[in-house]
Amino acid sequence: LRAQARTKLRVAVLAATGMVGQRYVTMLSDHPYFRLTTVTGQSSVGKPYGQVISSGPFPVSREAKDLTVKPTSVDGIGEADLVFSPLPTEAAMSLEPELVKRGYNVITDASPHRMDRLVPLVVPEVNPSHLSLLQRQREAGWKGSLVATPNCTAAGLALVLKPIHAELGLKRVLVSTMQAVSGAGYPGVPSLDILDNVIPFIKDEEDKVETEPLKMLGSVGKGGVKPAGFDISAMVHRVATTDGHLESMYVETEDSFNPSKVAELLARFRGEPQELRLPSAPAEPIIVTKEDARPQPRLDRYAGTVPGMSVVVGRIRKGLDSKSGRLTMLSHNTIRGAAGSTILTAELMYRKGLLG
Amino acid sequence: LRAQARTKLRVAVLAATGMVGQRYVTMLSDHPYFRLTTVTGQSSVGKPYGQVISSGPFPVSREAKDLTVKPTSVDGIGEADLVFSPLPTEAAMSLEPELVKRGYNVITDASPHRMDRLVPLVVPEVNPSHLSLLQRQREAGWKGSLVATPNCTAAGLALVLKPIHAELGLKRVLVSTMQAVSGAGYPGVPSLDILDNVIPFIKDEEDKVETEPLKMLGSVGKGGVKPAGFDISAMVHRVATTDGHLESMYVETEDSFNPSKVAELLARFRGEPQELRLPSAPAEPIIVTKEDARPQPRLDRYAGTVPGMSVVVGRIRKGLDSKSGRLTMLSHNTIRGAAGSTILTAELMYRKGLLG
Amino acid sequence: LRAQARTKLRVAVLAATGMVGQRYVTMLSDHPYFRLTTVTGQSSVGKPYGQVISSGPFPVSREAKDLTVKPTSVDGIGEADLVFSPLPTEAAMSLEPELVKRGYNVITDASPHRMDRLVPLVVPEVNPSHLSLLQRQREAGWKGSLVATPNCTAAGLALVLKPIHAELGLKRVLVSTMQAVSGAGYPGVPSLDILDNVIPFIKDEEDKVETEPLKMLGSVGKGGVKPAGFDISAMVHRVATTDGHLESMYVETEDSFNPSKVAELLARFRGEPQELRLPSAPAEPIIVTKEDARPQPRLDRYAGTVPGMSVVVGRIRKGLDSKSGRLTMLSHNTIRGAAGSTILTAELMYRKGLLG
Amino acid sequence: LRAQARTKLRVAVLAATGMVGQRYVTMLSDHPYFRLTTVTGQSSVGKPYGQVISSGPFPVSREAKDLTVKPTSVDGIGEADLVFSPLPTEAAMSLEPELVKRGYNVITDASPHRMDRLVPLVVPEVNPSHLSLLQRQREAGWKGSLVATPNCTAAGLALVLKPIHAELGLKRVLVSTMQAVSGAGYPGVPSLDILDNVIPFIKDEEDKVETEPLKMLGSVGKGGVKPAGFDISAMVHRVATTDGHLESMYVETEDSFNPSKVAELLARFRGEPQELRLPSAPAEPIIVTKEDARPQPRLDRYAGTVPGMSVVVGRIRKGLDSKSGRLTMLSHNTIRGAAGSTILTAELMYRKGLLG
Repeated sequence: LRAQARTKLRVAVLAATGMVGQRYVTMLSDHPYFRLTTVTGQSSVGKPYGQVISSGPFPVSREAKDLTVKPTSVDGIGEADLVFSPLPTEAAMSLEPELVKRGYNVITDASPHRMDRLVPLVVPEVNPSHLSLLQRQREAGWKGSLVATPNCTAAGLALVLKPIHAELGLKRVLVSTMQAVSGAGYPGVPSLDILDNVIPFIKDEEDKVETEPLKMLGSVGKGGVKPAGFDISAMVHRVATTDGHLESMYVETEDSFNPSKVAELLARFRGEPQELRLPSAPAEPIIVTKEDARPQPRLDRYAGTVPGMSVVVGRIRKGLDSKSGRLTMLSHNTIRGAAGSTILTAELMYRKGLLG
Repeated sequence: LRAQARTKLRVAVLAATGMVGQRYVTMLSDHPYFRLTTVTGQSSVGKPYGQVISSGPFPVSREAKDLTVKPTSVDGIGEADLVFSPLPTEAAMSLEPELVKRGYNVITDASPHRMDRLVPLVVPEVNPSHLSLLQRQREAGWKGSLVATPNCTAAGLALVLKPIHAELGLKRVLVSTMQAVSGAGYPGVPSLDILDNVIPFIKDEEDKVETEPLKMLGSVGKGGVKPAGFDISAMVHRVATTDGHLESMYVETEDSFNPSKVAELLARFRGEPQELRLPSAPAEPIIVTKEDARPQPRLDRYAGTVPGMSVVVGRIRKGLDSKSGRLTMLSHNTIRGAAGSTILTAELMYRKGLLG
Repeated sequence: LRAQARTKLRVAVLAATGMVGQRYVTMLSDHPYFRLTTVTGQSSVGKPYGQVISSGPFPVSREAKDLTVKPTSVDGIGEADLVFSPLPTEAAMSLEPELVKRGYNVITDASPHRMDRLVPLVVPEVNPSHLSLLQRQREAGWKGSLVATPNCTAAGLALVLKPIHAELGLKRVLVSTMQAVSGAGYPGVPSLDILDNVIPFIKDEEDKVETEPLKMLGSVGKGGVKPAGFDISAMVHRVATTDGHLESMYVETEDSFNPSKVAELLARFRGEPQELRLPSAPAEPIIVTKEDARPQPRLDRYAGTVPGMSVVVGRIRKGLDSKSGRLTMLSHNTIRGAAGSTILTAELMYRKGLLG
Repeated sequence: LRAQARTKLRVAVLAATGMVGQRYVTMLSDHPYFRLTTVTGQSSVGKPYGQVISSGPFPVSREAKDLTVKPTSVDGIGEADLVFSPLPTEAAMSLEPELVKRGYNVITDASPHRMDRLVPLVVPEVNPSHLSLLQRQREAGWKGSLVATPNCTAAGLALVLKPIHAELGLKRVLVSTMQAVSGAGYPGVPSLDILDNVIPFIKDEEDKVETEPLKMLGSVGKGGVKPAGFDISAMVHRVATTDGHLESMYVETEDSFNPSKVAELLARFRGEPQELRLPSAPAEPIIVTKEDARPQPRLDRYAGTVPGMSVVVGRIRKGLDSKSGRLTMLSHNTIRGAAGSTILTAELMYRKGLLG
């Protein structure tokens, strides 16, 4: 235990006062591999972190509360073995490359660099092998490293598509989403827009959902990642839920789609995080429910052994022909779709010796 | 005026104290063709209608308030030229055939007889010609007649698919719905089920959405209606909206799907109700919006010249190939999807001389 | 008609693209006394108004849509007989006095000048006589004039308290409010704050609710308005409703509180706007309901002859002793509590010849 | 361990498939004093409990899932040292006295017997001494015993009023509530009634809130409980929250109301459950928050060491004079207001040797 404590890596959380930032701080409390040593912010620089965040439902450790908020800048971070970056798009675009130049290992939830040639876009159960791109980054002279976590809707989608694609071969996926307001951050969606309403549009979201899973399910080749050879169509909607993105999809497959076999396939699916028993790995990455009216955001978003890290799949049915099927999936957007997935990636990197 | 008053038909509304029943009563106030002479109920039999319904946002005429509620039974209705039947499924199953035997002309929102061979399933802009089945009913010895209005989700869907099918030829329609709680009647969906939640299931709904539009877009032949030759897949969801079903669909067509042409096609669409200038016919049955984030239930459900009777279509985009497209549609479920559509059918029947 | 058109006053709406601003524009369409000639905005300056506002549920006239948005500044307004100012607090603080100096007649929904000694704070049914302060403004050398509309919660409250105070004499009013999100403007309340939640706090609101009605129910004397001699305690809450503030109050009176007499008193109440049959005056400023579970925001906010201009009162009951009572009131916050009330004040001023 | 297992009491939960019933089953999993041996229901009699309840967010033990549902009747319960009765009103009225006649010890959440002369109405931190009435029950020849838990709104209210009354002496309490839909059970409040709405009425609720706390804060005398000598006025409202009743109150006291002293008084308050360290006793029964906009249902309903068992108080302010004050309180209605409070009472009875 003592030895382990000594080897804990020092981690920084950027934009730690934001909604996803707070999730990071909570999930990093008493983490066996990581020790939170830096939190950054903007208007709150210089204040104790505990004073800045309002006491919400998420427990924050004493240690985290005592940290002084540093500026979100290349010079603000100080010594850190790993930097979590849930930055807004524009800030991430310029700051993240700067951090890598300075030698930081950065894992980002932000979108700007996700599709970059040398940047692995990772969901740990889906494509751990893509971390081999870090070797290419070094070869290209990068001092630090950059790994990206996908869009919150794409993360859960890729997780569910992985075993189906591996077993049946995907040809087309047509997904319709019903997304929680927390996906837009805070203050995010005005209440006047969402009470008694649905908004059939989220800026830039459909493009991400249609491309990111293909990169994740693709294979690493010479020129970077060769995307998987199927097509995704996304129609996205914002609904009046707080957390948990629901995604209903129609899939077309190379081989026959047998609902009960697919149910088994999904329920059995395990990845490297499960094999390595990583601290944030849920026992079952995909929970399959047979109840008629499930999954539901309020009832299922914290299902499983690590709350928010399992996706729940239900209503697995045949499609219009034998080589197509339908299913509905729920994924916690700020945990499996952001902070949780990223920490799991960091745990995987730690265990593979990629953070030292 | 006097002449007109004399020719007004006497109409009865069954289950008039229910949610759709109240919509009927409101919409029949001062109707130029119809005079409400009978309202039926269950627990409220014998009381004045005005005492039974709570004063809601819908204005009810003095005359309607003074009507005494009659029992919902073959003997309760008395003299009526037309009977509107928004009955629950089971009650409709047995009572409606009885009413027809007694010689009543019945138009029903209930589901049991929608797919019956001799029963026209009608949205007046979509398939007015199906009313020719009434002649077959007479030939088969029916004393009265029975016409059905489709499921609330199917009604709007058929309306939008009609011009697309006519022009481009539909091969497949994959629709994902986000439906308002009023679709389940009153008391309907418990609030504990829907606050901060989405329910990916509505009993029997998907089957109706997948079959009823095909009957409506089919053609009347010797054996009844031959359904249209394309396939529909429906994934339905209940969301926390009061009124207005949102439907996002992916369509595959025989001919090329050109978004701007489809937009024009839909915006230009008119049916017999518009030609005949029926009282409840909206000037534009389909309103096309070009705004990014529309249609939205709260903002668009009462759009157009007859509130609740126009559907609003937006986000018309290409699909994954040139012969497919995507669009999102909003339809007011208790007006265009129930009472309003049925009254429009009755108006059409009146003008065609089909109501005695 | 021609004569009338000639006498219509030219009015400007500041911040016309905001939520209350849009209400003004809608309510001024085809107004018999006023002609909208100027709309101002910030980021939308130079564009046609119709392009700037998204097509919402409120109809905007062709003429209004064609107006070019001007800057919100002393020089931006041009010729106008009357200026409606639903400006944010800070902007109002400096701009409104400037406008008065330039000779404009300004009616404001903003808070900074409401309690100023020479500024009448008016709900037309409550204290039309306070408009006599305009004479004092002239005597003090003001080139234009300034009239204020109270806080959205205080407006409905003052309306209901007026006849009770006049008849029974108020000693104390303890009010607890449940306020709609539109009260905070747009974007206003983040949806993450209000879904499945209540917020027992609105910045500065309680102070306004506790003081403004006293000014309105006070009497004009030499030093300005002498506030009414009773006390108000307010506890305010934000709830997940779109429009309509619900206010439950406990009142202590000098004379006995007889619920049925108070019901009659409120139902009978009429003010100058009703006597003068002003265009925006509802037939009944206060509608009394006897149903157990009313008023309710969604069902009652548009009750009455001029939608949104009547408040609805229910649950009138005894208090803990004979000289106290309880009642619940609903008032549409952006109509009776803002744009509607202000336009009604303008109509009253027009008819009294106070607008030039 | 073995000894402990042997001494665990056998408990039955009536109506165990209902909403509060499920809370009981969850909270009784692995309970150190109690072993769930009987669950009863109505339509589900004969089925395994685990099959009947849908897998919700509340974990149910393997053992509970394997129990066969028994009928809710005198003969259905079998051997049990203690019976928890979250029955509907009418069922409770007749069945509970029957159970007592048969010798069962019953603790009920139902209302019919709460105000009975010999029945203690208990919140364990408030009036544990009222359990002395059990002796009177025995003297009166009762074979079993009956203890009642108050109405969900009254429970939290009594808890907060207790230390204020003890220290300052209450004269009047005027409370306005904003109550969650779970308070009405399942299916309970129709979603059509509560979306975008507030309902200012809950049947019989105000009467309970105005009388039950007085019994709890009263003293046991010869004729039963003499109620406390102050008055309560309640105005209740249903709002669109899932769990957690918010109550804003104006209190008038004999002594001066000093907000910071009252804050301290409340924060320091402890009762017998805390002294005895009962398993379900929260470390702080009353948590005091100093943040402006708290307590809030979604953020605070699970605050404290035993989720749902602490109430949270904020916005403690002066009233209109020195002997009055205002405060806002949040209480979890199905835990502190029902199952949790009742289990805590049972724990207290167990430790005092009152359960056989």
